[in-house]
Amino acid sequence: MFTKMQLTQYTTLYRSGKPFKTGAVIVDLENKDFQQNDTIPYFQVEEEDGKINFIYNMSKEDVVYGLGETLGALNKRGKIYRFYNTDDPEHTPDKMSLYGSHPFMILDGKSTFGLFIDYPSEIIFDIGFTDKDILKITVPSKDFDLYIFDSDEKLSIIKEYFNLTGKPYIPPKWAFGFQQSRWSYFSEEEVRNVAKKFRETGIPCDVIYTDIDYMDSYKVFTINKEKFPNYEGMVKDLKEIGIKVIPILDPGVKIEKGYEMYEEGKDKGFFCVDENGNDFVAAVWPGATHFPNFLNSEVRRWWGKKYKIFTDMGIKGFWNDMNEPSIFYTPKGLDNLLKILKYLEENKENAGIEVFLARETLLNIANNPEDYRSFFHKLDDGSLINHEKVHNLYGFNMTKATADELKELNPNERYLLLSRSSYPGLHRIASIWMGDNKSWWEHMLVNIRMLQSLNMMGFFYTGADIGGFGADSSAELVIRWMELGAFTPFYRNHTALNTRPQEPWQFDEESLNIMRDIVRLRYAFIPYTYSEYMNSVKESVPFVKPLSFVFEGDRVKDIEDQYMYGDSLMVAPVHEQNKKGRYVHLPDVKWLNWTACKYEERNMKVYEPGDYYIQAYLNEIPLFIKENSLIVLSEPMNYVGEKDITELTVIGLVSDHAIYNYYDDDGITYNFTNGEFGNLKIDITKVGKDFKIDVKPYDPANILKIKKIHFEIYDSDGSVIKKDMII
Amino acid sequence: MFTKMQLTQYTTLYRSGKPFKTGAVIVDLENKDFQQNDTIPYFQVEEEDGKINFIYNMSKEDVVYGLGETLGALNKRGKIYRFYNTDDPEHTPDKMSLYGSHPFMILDGKSTFGLFIDYPSEIIFDIGFTDKDILKITVPSKDFDLYIFDSDEKLSIIKEYFNLTGKPYIPPKWAFGFQQSRWSYFSEEEVRNVAKKFRETGIPCDVIYTDIDYMDSYKVFTINKEKFPNYEGMVKDLKEIGIKVIPILDPGVKIEKGYEMYEEGKDKGFFCVDENGNDFVAAVWPGATHFPNFLNSEVRRWWGKKYKIFTDMGIKGFWNDMNEPSIFYTPKGLDNLLKILKYLEENKENAGIEVFLARETLLNIANNPEDYRSFFHKLDDGSLINHEKVHNLYGFNMTKATADELKELNPNERYLLLSRSSYPGLHRIASIWMGDNKSWWEHMLVNIRMLQSLNMMGFFYTGADIGGFGADSSAELVIRWMELGAFTPFYRNHTALNTRPQEPWQFDEESLNIMRDIVRLRYAFIPYTYSEYMNSVKESVPFVKPLSFVFEGDRVKDIEDQYMYGDSLMVAPVHEQNKKGRYVHLPDVKWLNWTACKYEERNMKVYEPGDYYIQAYLNEIPLFIKENSLIVLSEPMNYVGEKDITELTVIGLVSDHAIYNYYDDDGITYNFTNGEFGNLKIDITKVGKDFKIDVKPYDPANILKIKKIHFEIYDSDGSVIKKDMII
Repeated sequence: MFTKMQLTQYTTLYRSGKPFKTGAVIVDLENKDFQQNDTIPYFQVEEEDGKINFIYNMSKEDVVYGLGETLGALNKRGKIYRFYNTDDPEHTPDKMSLYGSHPFMILDGKSTFGLFIDYPSEIIFDIGFTDKDILKITVPSKDFDLYIFDSDEKLSIIKEYFNLTGKPYIPPKWAFGFQQSRWSYFSEEEVRNVAKKFRETGIPCDVIYTDIDYMDSYKVFTINKEKFPNYEGMVKDLKEIGIKVIPILDPGVKIEKGYEMYEEGKDKGFFCVDENGNDFVAAVWPGATHFPNFLNSEVRRWWGKKYKIFTDMGIKGFWNDMNEPSIFYTPKGLDNLLKILKYLEENKENAGIEVFLARETLLNIANNPEDYRSFFHKLDDGSLINHEKVHNLYGFNMTKATADELKELNPNERYLLLSRSSYPGLHRIASIWMGDNKSWWEHMLVNIRMLQSLNMMGFFYTGADIGGFGADSSAELVIRWMELGAFTPFYRNHTALNTRPQEPWQFDEESLNIMRDIVRLRYAFIPYTYSEYMNSVKESVPFVKPLSFVFEGDRVKDIEDQYMYGDSLMVAPVHEQNKKGRYVHLPDVKWLNWTACKYEERNMKVYEPGDYYIQAYLNEIPLFIKENSLIVLSEPMNYVGEKDITELTVIGLVSDHAIYNYYDDDGITYNFTNGEFGNLKIDITKVGKDFKIDVKPYDPANILKIKKIHFEIYDSDGSVIKKDMII
Repeated sequence: MFTKMQLTQYTTLYRSGKPFKTGAVIVDLENKDFQQNDTIPYFQVEEEDGKINFIYNMSKEDVVYGLGETLGALNKRGKIYRFYNTDDPEHTPDKMSLYGSHPFMILDGKSTFGLFIDYPSEIIFDIGFTDKDILKITVPSKDFDLYIFDSDEKLSIIKEYFNLTGKPYIPPKWAFGFQQSRWSYFSEEEVRNVAKKFRETGIPCDVIYTDIDYMDSYKVFTINKEKFPNYEGMVKDLKEIGIKVIPILDPGVKIEKGYEMYEEGKDKGFFCVDENGNDFVAAVWPGATHFPNFLNSEVRRWWGKKYKIFTDMGIKGFWNDMNEPSIFYTPKGLDNLLKILKYLEENKENAGIEVFLARETLLNIANNPEDYRSFFHKLDDGSLINHEKVHNLYGFNMTKATADELKELNPNERYLLLSRSSYPGLHRIASIWMGDNKSWWEHMLVNIRMLQSLNMMGFFYTGADIGGFGADSSAELVIRWMELGAFTPFYRNHTALNTRPQEPWQFDEESLNIMRDIVRLRYAFIPYTYSEYMNSVKESVPFVKPLSFVFEGDRVKDIEDQYMYGDSLMVAPVHEQNKKGRYVHLPDVKWLNWTACKYEERNMKVYEPGDYYIQAYLNEIPLFIKENSLIVLSEPMNYVGEKDITELTVIGLVSDHAIYNYYDDDGITYNFTNGEFGNLKIDITKVGKDFKIDVKPYDPANILKIKKIHFEIYDSDGSVIKKDMII
């Protein structure tokens, strides 16, 4: 039933039927010849009424990695995952679906291989849940592409996946600064005050978001002139102090006579239609809306060009939300609900369990599968396709519209582009955050695990809403989460309507001071973070890696709450309440420890490999630099690029020899693709009790402004040698 | 505003206004004279419109213990707790209320003291949430008793609390056996088959529960004759194989002409009434019901005598559920909901956020505060009191009805008596389980923490629904939870309607075998468990204790997922998915480790104090016997009391001297209160490389059948000496 095509030494495509072209893959598969093929390696294949099951018998030692934006452990064994993009604000452990679908996994154990199923609707991975040693993947269709990556190396499987689906998105450099958001800052004045407050309190900040309430009654591409009389002026004034404003955009177009988006979309037939060919109606924030048919290229161009309204104001970032697409309810869904409530009314006296049925119905009125089956997309070839069949592509194509047209407008400008919903391929053009989490300590661990899983999918630039989106947060939780966030690429504090404010100054003085130290630490690390990020993209290696991707042995496979952040740094955040420390596993090599949030007060300590309880008070986060590797820091600034980086501080534990390839570029354009970037090859060799330091600059385009490097190099015995070098 | 009475050297009562007599306290406070008093030690007292706030400035090192059935960490700092008994099946971390109210806490740090507020309605403890260093307790009334326990010793504070409120409940010995439940076993046949299956699979079991569906249309004190044609015969037949049947009972009495409970209650005016004096109507499982007025002694006698229907069948245990009381909805609540939905219907086109309001309303239709304010209790003195004012006493008084009348019926019989809702004082006559948890790994940790907090309240005999009540469970989760449960006094596997079956045989063969080993291990420990339980009650010391109650220093205050189970054993359950081990902190002394679930295969290892990573595969749970203490085991049986215990195995690490006071009695009566119990004083002294063993029996009533004791005594160096002793 399958045809087969060997794409590389490691990667083979197994095709079933006529798959929909999702855009996930960048390799050209047209007019290549497929061979007939009956069996799939590793898997036993079962057909049952229109479904296909792939069955694999797992060994005790097998670990499963990947699956991107999913809940549960880093080792995906022991849970069922359902890929069907869903806007669910209750990320409780039993949930099987979130906002994105990333059906790429690595099985590592007795055998090691990778697998990617390119199919844009429901796929179910039952990984040792129903039967603890059986991996069962169910695709309810016969039209899909299955890729097997046949390598024993997890990292080379990921490289193959990136070769197939493309390299990760690169944001502007300022996107690595701190970002503040809230649903909502309700007025221009409020936004300006938040910006002012950051500068007054001396907390670095690069971005402030305006959530849905900046719009005129939630109409996309409009601005509430009453609350935001001069949005453009606000954008320009904040730019003066280094703060970029990013607006949110939702796909649902309000049904309202005279509203441009509505009238245009209606006239041009740009909306999804129901079974009768009428524009499909679904209620979201604005009430009744139509959904743009993003699977059509003409619609994408139309939509994408609208962003010019914002780029003309000097806006450099966009936040595409609600694009699963989220549906609060449809008229049909509402009718069903009302039927049930009428029944309840008539049976008041003996309705008991019925009230729970009503409850279920109301809870299921949102994002109801039936609604997703009831509308259609007109494709470029004029054919109609049911949304259900391509559900997981909607957010991807909305964001494709954004990215493509921004490229049209300003081909050489990098944008901070976020989408809530995603599918493989989106990682090339934008990134995602982790959606509507909660102010729960447990969600810090979800954040840490998902960060590692998403990096495997090429979503390098990601992070969670710091402090938690839903529910109220304590100062302690926000502080600990700010510490974790300082070591995630996307660093944004965000919270929901009617929750406790959680900007850094919303708590006590001590908390404010600790948070200032944390954010300043983040900025001190930006030379390292940006350099490592760019090198990771270049090398096609995840920027954030599980320990088990770097070190051998069973023991590290159990470690899910520590991670490698770039090649030199291991992060072990404290993610439990009231704790004054945590256990840390230090694999294989020696490690140079640093726990102070106040980076001027770092005092470094050398650890042998092993298991340790590391003390970490509220103003501390355990960081570990790997033996024979280096990190590079600079003085914190109020925002990225406020000043030239003229001095670097290089820190490392060198028992033998360490090399660091420091990278930098203009941070805002794609000129680096034409060789306009700077490199410092920093090479340190231990010679007796001293170190031989060699720095080779490569800087044809004059990117680097570095005049001086401070070296702080530790020996295995903890002794340190400090040197400055003028260059 | 307060009057004051010194009750003991450590305990002082501060009275405000005219408190309602809750029955929490057993000390007679009548016609004692109170002194005038203005200040409360430790606290600053604020009055704000009818509310009283108690404010305490916490130091960094202060730890707060107690509060019983609450979510969050063992150290209660960093969260808000609201004591208002609530039936909430979603135990997410942000929830402030559960089924019971236990306003007793211990602050341990710069100062150390205990506090108990005897007030039966809402009390709020904001423990460093709003301000991380402020403890703020709010009582929205001026009529309450506040007790301050002024001792530096946590355990003596708890002793004082037990002197004040009474000693913990003592169940029959068989209550320490394994118990199986499900919502629901729908027929007599199903129950019989489950019992048979336990004996076939060789898994010990003492109890099977019948949940709500054994009743005739959820009418309390009735039996569905169609599904359970011979409930009594079932009870007797299962007794033959050592299995006790326990039925569930709900307070809500179905409104149905001719139904005895309804007619009697109505005629005698035994139901709670609304503001117009009509019997109050609330919908629960049966649909519309009336709530018995358990705050009236005549009503309690009426209700309690009904249990005779079951005791006549030979039933020895009862499960009082839904007694917060849980309210699905009231006619008024339903009307409000329907109004909102009508509005929705009329505004279909532009309703957006409104559908979320409707959702909120439906979610809040259950257990709505307004409903609790809308009914009344007639007290013994004929006065009417609003339910709101005494809300937290309802379940306590329902269970008091049960306990008092069972005592009337069979004064010398012990019963297994469970209540879902509770208030201090209930711990004297019955116990509670932890309510409707979920099959979430996170809820194993909740179980471990709550187990320790509930023991401080005198709820020694407690535990959680093993495997989780709501949601589906994996084999791994059930196994790990069965391991934890083996070391909690109440050991019951229970799950909800429409969830995956989780009896031990519902998974694979390997899982079945591991679970058999775990349950057999539990039974091997019963001599120790029962002896320690009875000694704990005698000594007024919690049966389960946090490490910080036994060992000194800041470090142990961070340990929340290990606990002392009796005086000799520390339990460190694996509570994370896919883990092959865990970190364990071993304080102060040496420890003798045992991890095998299969107790015949135990191999013991001695550890020095420190932090360790302990390997623990799926069939292992890390157990540690404290240096110079002992445990006593016997051969597992199919059920408690199946055979006489003629041989004991005594295990310990004796570097110096260890004494164990083994206790036993008939396990079913109160004769032990007349001295009818047996003791073995086992005294082991290290003498050179050998041990001097001395066993002194005290057994006037001929309780003990022990003929032989196997000693397995380890030396600090791990060497072991095995001896048998005939007695």
